[in-house]
Amino acid sequence: MKKSGHPFDMAEVVTSDCVYKGVLMPSSDSTKIVVKLKSGYNVGLLRKHVKKIEVLEHAKTSKAAAAKKLVERKHLPVISILHFGGTIAAEVDYATGAVVARFTPEELVAKFPEIEQIGNVRSRLIRNMFSEDMRFAHYNLLAKEIAKEISAGADGVIVTHGTDTMGYTAAALAFMLEHLPVPVVLVGSQRSSDRGSSDAAMNLICAAHFISKSNFAGVCVCMHEKSSDDFCSILPACKVRKMHTSRRDAFKAVNSIPIAKVDIKGSLEFVQTNYKRKSKEKVVVKGFRENLRIGMLKVHPNMHAQEFLSYKNFDGLVIEGTGLGHAPVNVIDEQTKEHKKILDAIRSLSKNIPVVMTSQTIFGRVQMNVYSTGRMLQEAGVLGNYCDMLPETAFIKLAWLLSNCKKDDVKRLIGENLRGEISKRTQENEYL
Amino acid sequence: MKKSGHPFDMAEVVTSDCVYKGVLMPSSDSTKIVVKLKSGYNVGLLRKHVKKIEVLEHAKTSKAAAAKKLVERKHLPVISILHFGGTIAAEVDYATGAVVARFTPEELVAKFPEIEQIGNVRSRLIRNMFSEDMRFAHYNLLAKEIAKEISAGADGVIVTHGTDTMGYTAAALAFMLEHLPVPVVLVGSQRSSDRGSSDAAMNLICAAHFISKSNFAGVCVCMHEKSSDDFCSILPACKVRKMHTSRRDAFKAVNSIPIAKVDIKGSLEFVQTNYKRKSKEKVVVKGFRENLRIGMLKVHPNMHAQEFLSYKNFDGLVIEGTGLGHAPVNVIDEQTKEHKKILDAIRSLSKNIPVVMTSQTIFGRVQMNVYSTGRMLQEAGVLGNYCDMLPETAFIKLAWLLSNCKKDDVKRLIGENLRGEISKRTQENEYL
Repeated sequence: MKKSGHPFDMAEVVTSDCVYKGVLMPSSDSTKIVVKLKSGYNVGLLRKHVKKIEVLEHAKTSKAAAAKKLVERKHLPVISILHFGGTIAAEVDYATGAVVARFTPEELVAKFPEIEQIGNVRSRLIRNMFSEDMRFAHYNLLAKEIAKEISAGADGVIVTHGTDTMGYTAAALAFMLEHLPVPVVLVGSQRSSDRGSSDAAMNLICAAHFISKSNFAGVCVCMHEKSSDDFCSILPACKVRKMHTSRRDAFKAVNSIPIAKVDIKGSLEFVQTNYKRKSKEKVVVKGFRENLRIGMLKVHPNMHAQEFLSYKNFDGLVIEGTGLGHAPVNVIDEQTKEHKKILDAIRSLSKNIPVVMTSQTIFGRVQMNVYSTGRMLQEAGVLGNYCDMLPETAFIKLAWLLSNCKKDDVKRLIGENLRGEISKRTQENEYL
Repeated sequence: MKKSGHPFDMAEVVTSDCVYKGVLMPSSDSTKIVVKLKSGYNVGLLRKHVKKIEVLEHAKTSKAAAAKKLVERKHLPVISILHFGGTIAAEVDYATGAVVARFTPEELVAKFPEIEQIGNVRSRLIRNMFSEDMRFAHYNLLAKEIAKEISAGADGVIVTHGTDTMGYTAAALAFMLEHLPVPVVLVGSQRSSDRGSSDAAMNLICAAHFISKSNFAGVCVCMHEKSSDDFCSILPACKVRKMHTSRRDAFKAVNSIPIAKVDIKGSLEFVQTNYKRKSKEKVVVKGFRENLRIGMLKVHPNMHAQEFLSYKNFDGLVIEGTGLGHAPVNVIDEQTKEHKKILDAIRSLSKNIPVVMTSQTIFGRVQMNVYSTGRMLQEAGVLGNYCDMLPETAFIKLAWLLSNCKKDDVKRLIGENLRGEISKRTQENEYL
């Protein structure tokens, strides 16, 4: 009785209890067979319990394709793909049955052969990590590698990246890469590329088309616009956010609109017109101080001053206030005595470190002049009035300013638009 | 030359520099005249600099109306309005020019005479506070007052409330008020009621219609569905969130849909069908332990273990993880050595207090089985797998469970649906 198949073969695996139909996953443990079911879940079966494996459809051999040498086409742009990890190139962890980032970039390109028709692809593995593990040091590494690719002639760079913190990284790159002459496109995937419903291929191919066909220079994110495969949105680096845990259209522009829309055949439509064009400038990398400690604190009911004071040894703090940028600082009855301590804590923090207000509503603009609460916070030294910055972008910007500017300049620049992170006016179409 | 007008008169105020057109605001400082401009901003003018005030339109005298005695109409339901504060009944702070909560409930009802046609209105002032100042003690107070109104025969209760933390309060009331036999509707306003664009009247009147015309029992929020005055949404208490700092349609259902839609003329359409109906049950209040300390910590890049450890003396912690419910716990290179400390910190916290995972994406469901990161967090004791609870609702639920249940029950119940805070299935129409 046949008891084997090749990785990525579609097969029926028969045990005494059940027939599992799905994709055979590569397994480093020879005593186990892992099947990815149609539902997306993996089942690990002890080989000794498996009675039969019937291959229904043989997998395309991506490893063989990866070994193929790429032919250079002079009329096509040079597209550099830097691999940093994430679901876009993930497979199953045999130990736990969970998904981990594991593919090499060669295999990645081999899996999506359409890209070869769009550009001359260069591809390198920089890191293979979950994006929740990103630290300032990784931003520095990534920015340097991007600059290296551009200096070596890349007409655009695609960074494959985990989706969890892709918004933060987009903002980080936007601040770090000054005088960027080409597009740098962050691409992720919400479903691993061994799933039928994976968004990996379309996101990657659309990003390549965008590099090839547009005159845009700057950092952006390319992800599904809808849950269907109609087209991808090119989203602004400092105003993009992951808004859903699992949907393919998780990434949305916040207090902004997409820069452009692009489909898998390369049809491109710009939605914004006021963007930086490609140029002959030379990119300059301004990195992060890796030992900085920046906190984020979300205001909630029944807060205690200690929640603020625990950041007293940090280098900066971003508050996610309620509404227009509020915190519990009014003493109105016996129950709110703690609020004086909170105001004192904010005042004492602000004397030593920048404390920046944002809003936990995500959409909209901080306005600390409308209510007396906001005035009290401003008097206590809280920065960020009138800004429509995402809390995540404010976090990145604060760290970057502290890494690159004098203390007084940080306080001034946090409220000035440097990379499209602050819009002067709020438009009707920038909301849900 | 005439140099005065009455509060809320529309007038032109002439100084040597400028002519200000707007609404005259009541001023406790007789040396100043405060004008609310069309833009919504207030300008304070020294009376001695004012050359002339020309009244363009006299204000309706709300104080006179408030003195009028209400006539009881036997065929109409009893609607109790409990006033807790917020912009819905706010005016200008003369000291700062900012908006503060100040109206009495009598004036509030007088300002919106339509309500008298919908029900027999009872109205009481409980607190006049900004909602960012709410503490567990205020939830206890509010729940008791609501129960008192219901025992006294109210067919429904409207609570006027600041919008900043209205979502948290809605969830708190949903947990506190067991066997609720009637609707309790939270109503706020994003623009103060002395502004032309105020949403106060419509939100309040729609709430009264909803109480009068529906058979719903439970806690909900009534706010503008769109930026226009078409209709209001009735939103589920545990799945509602303020998503914009200033728009009138700031409140949205998250991982859910509105319960119903209602317009200012009283036309009512239910969107959900599976809701609790009005009954003859007797409401039971189960309050919060007021000295509880519950933290909320949002995962971000470059975290330090100290950010987790600072909650070691707290009673519970809600983590707003990235993506499916992740935190930086993988040690993959020199830079991520701190991540071992973070995992250890989470493990040591979890030994003593409940640590609950939610997602900062807001929409979607925590799934800590998909990636190895999630498995590690579960092994470290993190709760909340498979839940689609809002972080804000998880915060309230955790505090309420700790107030009312044994330790082991807290761990079990955090993942069980008690008040509509967790949906079993995710529906396509529950996203943006």
